[in-house]
Amino acid sequence: MSATSYTLPRVWQWEAGNGGKFSGTNRPTAGATHDQPLSLGKHRFQLYSLATPNGVKAAIMFEELLALGHDAEYDAWLVDIGEGEQFGSGFVGANPNSKIPALFDHGHSEPVRVFESGSILLYLAEQFDALLPRAHATRTETLNWLFWQMSSAGFVGGGFGHFYAYAPEALKYPIDRYAMETKRLFDVLDQRLATTRYLNGENYSIADIASWGWFGQMALGRTYDAVEFLQLHDYQHVMRWAREIAERPAVKRGCMVNRPFGEPHEQLLERHAASDFEHRTQDKIGG
Amino acid sequence: MSATSYTLPRVWQWEAGNGGKFSGTNRPTAGATHDQPLSLGKHRFQLYSLATPNGVKAAIMFEELLALGHDAEYDAWLVDIGEGEQFGSGFVGANPNSKIPALFDHGHSEPVRVFESGSILLYLAEQFDALLPRAHATRTETLNWLFWQMSSAGFVGGGFGHFYAYAPEALKYPIDRYAMETKRLFDVLDQRLATTRYLNGENYSIADIASWGWFGQMALGRTYDAVEFLQLHDYQHVMRWAREIAERPAVKRGCMVNRPFGEPHEQLLERHAASDFEHRTQDKIGG
Repeated sequence: MSATSYTLPRVWQWEAGNGGKFSGTNRPTAGATHDQPLSLGKHRFQLYSLATPNGVKAAIMFEELLALGHDAEYDAWLVDIGEGEQFGSGFVGANPNSKIPALFDHGHSEPVRVFESGSILLYLAEQFDALLPRAHATRTETLNWLFWQMSSAGFVGGGFGHFYAYAPEALKYPIDRYAMETKRLFDVLDQRLATTRYLNGENYSIADIASWGWFGQMALGRTYDAVEFLQLHDYQHVMRWAREIAERPAVKRGCMVNRPFGEPHEQLLERHAASDFEHRTQDKIGG
Repeated sequence: MSATSYTLPRVWQWEAGNGGKFSGTNRPTAGATHDQPLSLGKHRFQLYSLATPNGVKAAIMFEELLALGHDAEYDAWLVDIGEGEQFGSGFVGANPNSKIPALFDHGHSEPVRVFESGSILLYLAEQFDALLPRAHATRTETLNWLFWQMSSAGFVGGGFGHFYAYAPEALKYPIDRYAMETKRLFDVLDQRLATTRYLNGENYSIADIASWGWFGQMALGRTYDAVEFLQLHDYQHVMRWAREIAERPAVKRGCMVNRPFGEPHEQLLERHAASDFEHRTQDKIGG
């Protein structure tokens, strides 16, 4: 493998195993690779996830809904992406894109699948009329920022995160490209939060949950260890917002769900009841 | 500039002008660089755009709504991103992220800004109760695929498109990474469209409009000239869907809007009335 300039072939050919971390499971094809049914618990909502920046969004949303008193009980099952469980037949049925998080809602006549973290946040907000303001302008602004986060994740995570943390060697051009774009996105967020408490104005919403998963956790040094490299402490309004949201009890709980890494007290590998946070089990997979 | 492996500095430093095509206007900071008010026409909807894969989504949506008989008349203004117009004060007010398309809806007590192409599609679908099914499961599936497209654009456009078409030199590792991911996404789409006519099932929707802008136009060779490189003709169900949608009169019109490139008969630099498609003017900028 060479990372340097080369002459493009007429037809691209896949060379398996060239992709750095996770290259063992990444492929240029979609669909199930093996039979593996999804686990099924007793609650209306069945979440299949992992505590990545995208995964925590869904768990935080459930914990916020429960904290607000909504009947949003859920089972959260760990998907081990290092073992390729996202390519099991059951998971592909939940999300044909084979990415966590994926959700089934068993509260309708037929189970309804919901995939993409942004779609899950919007779905739950509409089901419970919560964390998405009804007022037209504020609702619109909330959705603007929700889509902004979704479209930026490919640059922040798929771009910067990959070339900074996961690629087999450090490549200057891609790192420069994505560091510039990531800092620009932090500055967009910082300028917004210089004038408003939350992304839509005065109301904590699904837009904050989505953006905190990536930008908040990066600002706090929890994702990619890039605070110094990108000088993230310079974004003081993002820092204020990131710290405030991190203190929410529902956010603290949501970040523990389906988390097989970090300190033992941060890990709740599966979540089936509110009491699980007090009685954590770390023995489900390699923990 | 070296594209090869290097030792990461402690703190990343921006080197202006390293970014290939568009590097003259890309920066690691957000906000307006100059005063430039937005143009304002007579219609309720004011669209500020350019006929990129993201831009055409919005124009196609308006043309589809008009074809359905909705009162969705709009002015479409060209944003010259090569000249940095997306960093003008007016445009930044419409979209603090400085990306086309951006929209103002003047049909409420105060103008409502809508940014991100996915947010614009959802906004217009809800305003007119069109192209987004009401039935719960089908609406959910539509939004799943809408978010899927939005989260994948950073890989297809920001990743594959950049390193294949815009970067100053061809780098093997990033091209391999994004060619693999782009083919995987095409396969996700292909497997879906093998069993359903449109993304949500049987109904043409905003999910198709969003995905056609990228995947449809790439499959038809209109974006990136990568049909042979990625063997896109192998995705026969995508090809069927891409060709069918391309034949829709509203799609043909939408693709012409704010298009300062291509053949003269394909270009409608600004759109202010349905009759503009018959009386095209190519004299607004450099055409």
